[in-house]
Amino acid sequence: MIKLLQKAAKQAGQVLLDYFEKELSYQEKKSQHDIVTEADLASQEIIHKLLLEEMINRGFNKEEIGFIGEEGLNIESSKHLFIIDPVDGTTNFASGVGYFAVSIAYGLNGEIRAGVVYSPVDGLLYLAEKGKGAWRIKENQKIQLHAKQIPLKQSILNGHFNSPFEQKQFEIYAKMYPQVRGFRSMGCLTLDLCHFLDNVFGVVVNGGCSIWDIAAVDLMIKEAGGSLVDWTGKEIKLDLKDPKRVYQPIATHPNLFSEVLKFF
Amino acid sequence: MIKLLQKAAKQAGQVLLDYFEKELSYQEKKSQHDIVTEADLASQEIIHKLLLEEMINRGFNKEEIGFIGEEGLNIESSKHLFIIDPVDGTTNFASGVGYFAVSIAYGLNGEIRAGVVYSPVDGLLYLAEKGKGAWRIKENQKIQLHAKQIPLKQSILNGHFNSPFEQKQFEIYAKMYPQVRGFRSMGCLTLDLCHFLDNVFGVVVNGGCSIWDIAAVDLMIKEAGGSLVDWTGKEIKLDLKDPKRVYQPIATHPNLFSEVLKFF
Repeated sequence: MIKLLQKAAKQAGQVLLDYFEKELSYQEKKSQHDIVTEADLASQEIIHKLLLEEMINRGFNKEEIGFIGEEGLNIESSKHLFIIDPVDGTTNFASGVGYFAVSIAYGLNGEIRAGVVYSPVDGLLYLAEKGKGAWRIKENQKIQLHAKQIPLKQSILNGHFNSPFEQKQFEIYAKMYPQVRGFRSMGCLTLDLCHFLDNVFGVVVNGGCSIWDIAAVDLMIKEAGGSLVDWTGKEIKLDLKDPKRVYQPIATHPNLFSEVLKFF
Repeated sequence: MIKLLQKAAKQAGQVLLDYFEKELSYQEKKSQHDIVTEADLASQEIIHKLLLEEMINRGFNKEEIGFIGEEGLNIESSKHLFIIDPVDGTTNFASGVGYFAVSIAYGLNGEIRAGVVYSPVDGLLYLAEKGKGAWRIKENQKIQLHAKQIPLKQSILNGHFNSPFEQKQFEIYAKMYPQVRGFRSMGCLTLDLCHFLDNVFGVVVNGGCSIWDIAAVDLMIKEAGGSLVDWTGKEIKLDLKDPKRVYQPIATHPNLFSEVLKFF
């Protein structure tokens, strides 16, 4: 299954690279903070098509294959479920900033079993399979990922801004700032969380994301010995039956949660 | 001269790429917000050596060649002056985030005449020569840059955090947020300002930078029909005789300055 996810993510990544830095025709979606591009749809289509074809080729029953995705895929089935974000970091992508990623997770009977995240511009691939660890692959170099405890003072805080909590988020980050090494807001949660596993960011905060943003990385973080908690400190449990649920994840080393949660 | 700057920036970029993603030994500099790596010094050394050699080869007198740089170069001469930032975005670079750049400017008798910025990871090169426009080069594709007026509502605000103004900056960005399309803090002023010229960021704000951070891009912005102003709205004039001076630049389209300055 992980090989299939990798293949789909890389094909989608190639589609995105072809669109990247070209003139993109885009339409506004929801608000001026969120745009959808032709490339999102093309990326999703190639992932959806490939996964469906290969699953059927492998003898799975079409009726048992479901998809949840950002761009309107809501074919629900409880058995084999693919959770797709065809481009996380759409605004970066559409603006010509090369910090965006494809995310695909696979759930079996309501539990995430595998996930991949692919960053096309630098060719970084992150993946996890349940019980087999989390890994980063670049040019055939494979490194196992472990959530590492970095003292808060040496950590870079990566904070998102999510409607309607933006002002609260500015307040929280301003309060935390004197206790950390720096602040970043890069605009791609999936990749920010992968870089948390790389020990680039010591703390990542988001105030409102969907299951497709975190399904793959949540498994990676668990496999690396960590967990995502919400703003009240409760471990995040993904609900594959409710694709519209909104999550408020915080990633940091488990030993730092209590220190970080004081700011919320 | 511009060819020489390009050559130096690309050689330095190659040095940085060689170090990038390797284990870097770094020492803390000034505070935990600012680290210097071996690669900074190696990058600066290669730039300094190449520029000095080639200038002497071209018949210039060594005593008339001066250098200002972040890493301790303070050989002052008023005639031919090179202003070097061997790595802008050091924290990104040292953390494995590929958003950093090399910046080199050339001043003649106290006036900046040429500048280049090179982003090694994606191979983007930005350059300007006085009176000849600002340009972006990637893979032999050369595009002239023009400061474009984007309505504030469609602009991404890119804001830095600089000691001791961080709390004030959080306040300013929080107030501006409802009026813009999004907020980013990417951690490399030089590249942020190049992306301003690409119309990726509509507003870029910094609260305390040095001449080596902006000498090259300031010329680019001028050549593209714009200008940098400080937080009081005055156009920034670089003082090549005072390398320790601190600047507080704001970049946006000249027609938007009054709208943006209201938040300061």
